[in-house]
Amino acid sequence: MREEVASSCPVPKVDSERIRLAHGGGGRLMHGLLEKLILPAFRNPLLDQRHDGAVFDVPGRVAFTTDSYVVRPIFFPGGDIGKLAVHGTINDLAMCGARPVALSAAFILEEGFSIEDFHRVIDSMRVAAGDVPIATGDTKVVDRGKGDGIYVTTAGVGVVDHSLAINPAGVRPGDAVLVSGDLGRHGIAVLAQREGLSFETTIESDTAPLWDAVSELLRAGISIHCLRDLTRGGLSSALVEIAEAAGVSIGMDECAIPVSEEVAGACEILGLDPFYVANEGRFVCFVPATEAERSLAVLRSTRVAHGAVLAGRVAEGPRGRVTVKSRIGALRILDMLSGEQLPRIC
Amino acid sequence: MREEVASSCPVPKVDSERIRLAHGGGGRLMHGLLEKLILPAFRNPLLDQRHDGAVFDVPGRVAFTTDSYVVRPIFFPGGDIGKLAVHGTINDLAMCGARPVALSAAFILEEGFSIEDFHRVIDSMRVAAGDVPIATGDTKVVDRGKGDGIYVTTAGVGVVDHSLAINPAGVRPGDAVLVSGDLGRHGIAVLAQREGLSFETTIESDTAPLWDAVSELLRAGISIHCLRDLTRGGLSSALVEIAEAAGVSIGMDECAIPVSEEVAGACEILGLDPFYVANEGRFVCFVPATEAERSLAVLRSTRVAHGAVLAGRVAEGPRGRVTVKSRIGALRILDMLSGEQLPRIC
Repeated sequence: MREEVASSCPVPKVDSERIRLAHGGGGRLMHGLLEKLILPAFRNPLLDQRHDGAVFDVPGRVAFTTDSYVVRPIFFPGGDIGKLAVHGTINDLAMCGARPVALSAAFILEEGFSIEDFHRVIDSMRVAAGDVPIATGDTKVVDRGKGDGIYVTTAGVGVVDHSLAINPAGVRPGDAVLVSGDLGRHGIAVLAQREGLSFETTIESDTAPLWDAVSELLRAGISIHCLRDLTRGGLSSALVEIAEAAGVSIGMDECAIPVSEEVAGACEILGLDPFYVANEGRFVCFVPATEAERSLAVLRSTRVAHGAVLAGRVAEGPRGRVTVKSRIGALRILDMLSGEQLPRIC
Repeated sequence: MREEVASSCPVPKVDSERIRLAHGGGGRLMHGLLEKLILPAFRNPLLDQRHDGAVFDVPGRVAFTTDSYVVRPIFFPGGDIGKLAVHGTINDLAMCGARPVALSAAFILEEGFSIEDFHRVIDSMRVAAGDVPIATGDTKVVDRGKGDGIYVTTAGVGVVDHSLAINPAGVRPGDAVLVSGDLGRHGIAVLAQREGLSFETTIESDTAPLWDAVSELLRAGISIHCLRDLTRGGLSSALVEIAEAAGVSIGMDECAIPVSEEVAGACEILGLDPFYVANEGRFVCFVPATEAERSLAVLRSTRVAHGAVLAGRVAEGPRGRVTVKSRIGALRILDMLSGEQLPRIC
């Protein structure tokens, strides 16, 4: 991803090259890790308050969200656990129609984890967060064998400065279903890296912040009914969840939904269905049918959603039923994942 | 703790008795865990939005904080990992002078973790949160051997409805240092349980929400300069951090600071210093000397700080120096913990 160019700080000198239990003990070593590694990377006026929390002004309505990240491996083509955590929380806020104003970062480190890798993750979070301050945080260390290097939990606060109620309850029969781009890159990128598979071209994760695209829709005055990013469980699980919550059915058109040749090929070899593979920079958007064309034009003008398509339509019922018309015209029913397709993908 | 009386829901029927990898996969099993276990326990209008985040109104200034909890064992006299996580986040908000309005809960579960224990933790969080909604959350599952049963990360949003700037920068030479009660119960309770030690009487953790006590101080119009809860690193580390950040020195009086006979005895046997042992329901409060007596009276009228004492005084410098006058009149210098005294205490 292009923004990584900005990221090349040297690893600061910390007291050791590996995480020790005492780095989580609340004393001198933890203080040193904070002062030398974490605070300089995330530097901002909120964090500089050096308090148990950050205090700031927000006007009116706010959105609040959290996610833990346990992805393996922690570095993969196109991203890493830190970038994913920052984008994921920005995206959950964006899916509420909220502009991100502050993030938190909590780390659970395993004794022995490399300080250099920790620095790489933190630096990547700094770059991914851009203008959004990482305002508060926490670091805990667990004994060797009781963790897996690093787990990251982010939370975020965002400001809602419009009067739309963007959530599943807003979805109506007749709504157009837009998909913001091609599916499956993130899941396949992580899986390929984990299993040591190589394809002709390296598939990179689609991880990206989605706020800019949502912001453009709002600016254009689109009456957004619902937004959902297509993470764990992929497009299928997101659609089924929304159809159940909204009490509607959804009909999708497979031909309309882009899947790159590389991802389609990898899915075929691996026996995966791209509709169920996790994405970290794609979302589905429900809008009134009359605003579908205008919404598509707005989305296609943004970097992250330039591949947006009109891919389906909402109908009355039966509640929770999601169907997809295949390339040869057959109708199949989509369900949520029933087992585990790709563990630890985010 | 008394409020636990309310907690006695039967364990709901989930598809299995142990956590499986697919419980974190974003599909049917995760959906079932959410619908049957987590959502019913935390039920509130914000969570019922069933969205990636919660949207709500806040007036003006907010505080935002997060902490991960990795305590072992997860159940101990007086509390458990869930109660600790909820109280800890409420307390970090309270230390900013903020009334808690919404919490998040993110779980990292290890494959094989017992559903019954998970339910116990969740139910304990419900009771501990009281009127504060657990508004949003996340659940991830890691493979067996890559976690330690359960890790909990909470974040919180609070409203600041006063104009005080409560943080280390507000501490002034001459300020009175109040300690809200006796020290060391939490650390000793967890350690005793972990190591299978037994004392004549069971020492219970002091874990408790501190907002009510802070709220009373604010209501009484006390010009609070700084608040800090005495968690990892105990009283000593908190004082040194504040003295460094504020550019002042602090002189404490050992005779004034209560330590129960049981805790003092346990510390002696274990070679621990109660000034460094973690507490989860105690805090230090910096106020102008002229308001010290009134502050003490307010604190002593609350349940959680009825044992509050005037325990020290702030002086000009040297920056970061914290001394304590012992029972026999000798002066010793307190420093932050330099290694790890009690790993995984919170």
